[in-house]
Amino acid sequence: MKSYCFGIDVGGTSVKCGLFNTDGTLLEKWEIPTRTENKGENILPDVAETIKAKIAEKNIDKDDIEGVGIGIPGPINSKGEAACAVNLYWGFTPVAQILSDLTGLKAQAGNDANVAALGEAWKGAAAGSQNVIMVTLGTGVGGGIIIDGKIVAGSHGAGGEIGHALVVRDEAEKCNCGNHGCLEQYASATGIVRVAGRMLAASDDDSTLRELQNITAKDVLDAFKAGDAVAVRVMEYVGDLLGGAIAGFATVADPEAIVIGGGVSKAGQPLIDCIEKYYQRYAFPSCKETPIVLATLGNDAGIYGAAKMVL
Amino acid sequence: MKSYCFGIDVGGTSVKCGLFNTDGTLLEKWEIPTRTENKGENILPDVAETIKAKIAEKNIDKDDIEGVGIGIPGPINSKGEAACAVNLYWGFTPVAQILSDLTGLKAQAGNDANVAALGEAWKGAAAGSQNVIMVTLGTGVGGGIIIDGKIVAGSHGAGGEIGHALVVRDEAEKCNCGNHGCLEQYASATGIVRVAGRMLAASDDDSTLRELQNITAKDVLDAFKAGDAVAVRVMEYVGDLLGGAIAGFATVADPEAIVIGGGVSKAGQPLIDCIEKYYQRYAFPSCKETPIVLATLGNDAGIYGAAKMVL
Repeated sequence: MKSYCFGIDVGGTSVKCGLFNTDGTLLEKWEIPTRTENKGENILPDVAETIKAKIAEKNIDKDDIEGVGIGIPGPINSKGEAACAVNLYWGFTPVAQILSDLTGLKAQAGNDANVAALGEAWKGAAAGSQNVIMVTLGTGVGGGIIIDGKIVAGSHGAGGEIGHALVVRDEAEKCNCGNHGCLEQYASATGIVRVAGRMLAASDDDSTLRELQNITAKDVLDAFKAGDAVAVRVMEYVGDLLGGAIAGFATVADPEAIVIGGGVSKAGQPLIDCIEKYYQRYAFPSCKETPIVLATLGNDAGIYGAAKMVL
Repeated sequence: MKSYCFGIDVGGTSVKCGLFNTDGTLLEKWEIPTRTENKGENILPDVAETIKAKIAEKNIDKDDIEGVGIGIPGPINSKGEAACAVNLYWGFTPVAQILSDLTGLKAQAGNDANVAALGEAWKGAAAGSQNVIMVTLGTGVGGGIIIDGKIVAGSHGAGGEIGHALVVRDEAEKCNCGNHGCLEQYASATGIVRVAGRMLAASDDDSTLRELQNITAKDVLDAFKAGDAVAVRVMEYVGDLLGGAIAGFATVADPEAIVIGGGVSKAGQPLIDCIEKYYQRYAFPSCKETPIVLATLGNDAGIYGAAKMVL
């Protein structure tokens, strides 16, 4: 195996870049801005330039580089093609092909949530696992499925879109995807705030949350950890939906580990305990002991997973 | 590639055997009894004997055989080891290893429902697809997940145990697995009968089902196809649960095709239409058009899939 590889994680405002040894050691990381103007036409050329500059700076022999992996916020099929990427203003883009042409390196592309899951399975919370489900609880709910050490990209690039599994049949509000009752509508940061708003409106129970002007998911999670009765009810409801949904995903993939990441996961072990309680209730018997663990790579999960894609 | 391979499907009463060309042509199939006495100790030796007899009868050069694949009714991990197989009276059994030792051939073992899914993905309803979800609606609800042309066995051999995904939170009756509200409790043949019994008891509506002594799933499905109001209500309820659950599984795997098999699937296209209606309602937008198709290999799916495992 060659000595080096690059892992790139494209976000809406900045591109995270990592130079790795192929054993998974992160040698250096840096960021460049994401230039979304002109339908994001500069983004991949900018990535190629920063890679070439790093190769020159470090005086690396190009023949000693395995390649470059890149994570993109949008659906990517197994050929490394993006159907679109709304935040980058892209239409159909053959990402891996373009990046390979621009750099002269082998290139692979994947969806950012899937790539982060691969990073956690490689060097993070589930290090060494070949089969992992990662659930990312952020503004939305994303996810990534790793089977046999590889990303399940799916036939429409929708592998791991577990935030859009149905969990509530009689939901009146629409999800961003157009359906009703998706997991994301309850378990994302915005979902948790929405559930809290509903539960506060539905009772007169005392709650520290009533003192706040604009409730955030962090407020709800802090109040939950402090034992606030309404916040506990909110998180028990969210944990029930999330634990049941993850138990269902586990009947498909039967992973070695389930990783919980994203901003909401900063609530830490109390959140895991709340999810686990319901997961264990609903999981298929032989899967009840599957560990549910907090992601450990944080914002670096994407560059790790991207690098792993080319190995 | 060599010219021949064997596919074996072990059931509780008989073992189905197939001799294949490695291009997937079924050359000959036959059955032997499953001898379950003495904790099923004769089953694998019997399989080895019938394979050796067939090799001798056909005068096949052993070096021209790719190997033998075998499907077992129980959880099998990716090493081809059965944790147990209740219907065969087996405890832990390293199936692939034993069969390889007995035959001198390369051997692979898988769970029977997973193996049937691989058969349908190879030469059946989803022929040529690399990513498939199969749902088997029989006495229970089984399933198989194929990713990149391979079975997802899972870390506890529970990959594809989709019959035990949670679909109803307030179910009072226990599932065979010990949980409450599993898909199998509604969408299996016994589940459909149970739902029909409940719905008949809950109303006085006319139904041809009321004239029957012991209602079977076939009775319910026949009445559904004939437009009987209660039977239609039963199957709309089952289709809603099944369509919603499958839409959730599709957020994990995003397959190219969803195959419906098992005895219940003999109801044919009206059943598919009923599932599809709800699947399309709940599926992630880019997956709404994923085809839902009837299994085509019937009882031969297992031997096809078993043979494919060694190729």
